[in-house]
Amino acid sequence: MRILVGYLISPEGQAALEAAVAEARLRDAKLVVLHSMRGGTRDEAEQVITYREQLEQIHEQLGAEDIDYEVRELVRGQSPAEDLIEFSAEEDVDLIVIGLRRRSPVGKLVLGSNAQDILLRADCPVLAVKADSEAEGA
Amino acid sequence: MRILVGYLISPEGQAALEAAVAEARLRDAKLVVLHSMRGGTRDEAEQVITYREQLEQIHEQLGAEDIDYEVRELVRGQSPAEDLIEFSAEEDVDLIVIGLRRRSPVGKLVLGSNAQDILLRADCPVLAVKADSEAEGA
Repeated sequence: MRILVGYLISPEGQAALEAAVAEARLRDAKLVVLHSMRGGTRDEAEQVITYREQLEQIHEQLGAEDIDYEVRELVRGQSPAEDLIEFSAEEDVDLIVIGLRRRSPVGKLVLGSNAQDILLRADCPVLAVKADSEAEGA
Repeated sequence: MRILVGYLISPEGQAALEAAVAEARLRDAKLVVLHSMRGGTRDEAEQVITYREQLEQIHEQLGAEDIDYEVRELVRGQSPAEDLIEFSAEEDVDLIVIGLRRRSPVGKLVLGSNAQDILLRADCPVLAVKADSEAEGA
């Protein structure tokens, strides 16, 4: 059994990672953290350096959890949603965990296009969680 | 622990119910099946009769599962999404399970407004599943 979560530096990305860890433990499943890079952009080199540092944090965080996990990186020139959907089909993923931002900067309730794409197009179930703190924020 | 699922006669409603049963078993949680009726409409009497028949089917289906469950009916003049969101807050629900229809009658990928509302406004995590058969349908 495999659980897939996208790697995202944000409160909702962190909420998704935490929920994915809990689900992996509950279901005795393997957790796959997917890092999606579009590739080919100018600031690629800088992004890669930042990412290396973040990757260490992920390994520090997940290494302390008693679960089976791996981090996968995709550079296919696609959006994070497209990468997640494609990967979930290729690798027989049983559950995708996503984090939702409930409020746009102007306070309106909107579901992001990445989230909509994943919810609609992924074949497997999708667990959507929100960041705890956002009720006070933004 | 409580898992909430809306009662809906449709392939995606059935998919949601099946997923909710599996989650209730996995998490050793109580399953609450919520039947939302707006109330006050003309054909109310006919709806109630149809619903009584459907309710028997639910009890037949869920009675055969080894889980703790209850069916609750709300008549608050609200949409099914509003009822689910309100109920989940009032009753301290830990997970809502919803079924998604991926295709509109014209074949376009759209997320229904009830689904969007629940995903955005419910405080607890939401598990979204799709009906198995829909790939061939619509």
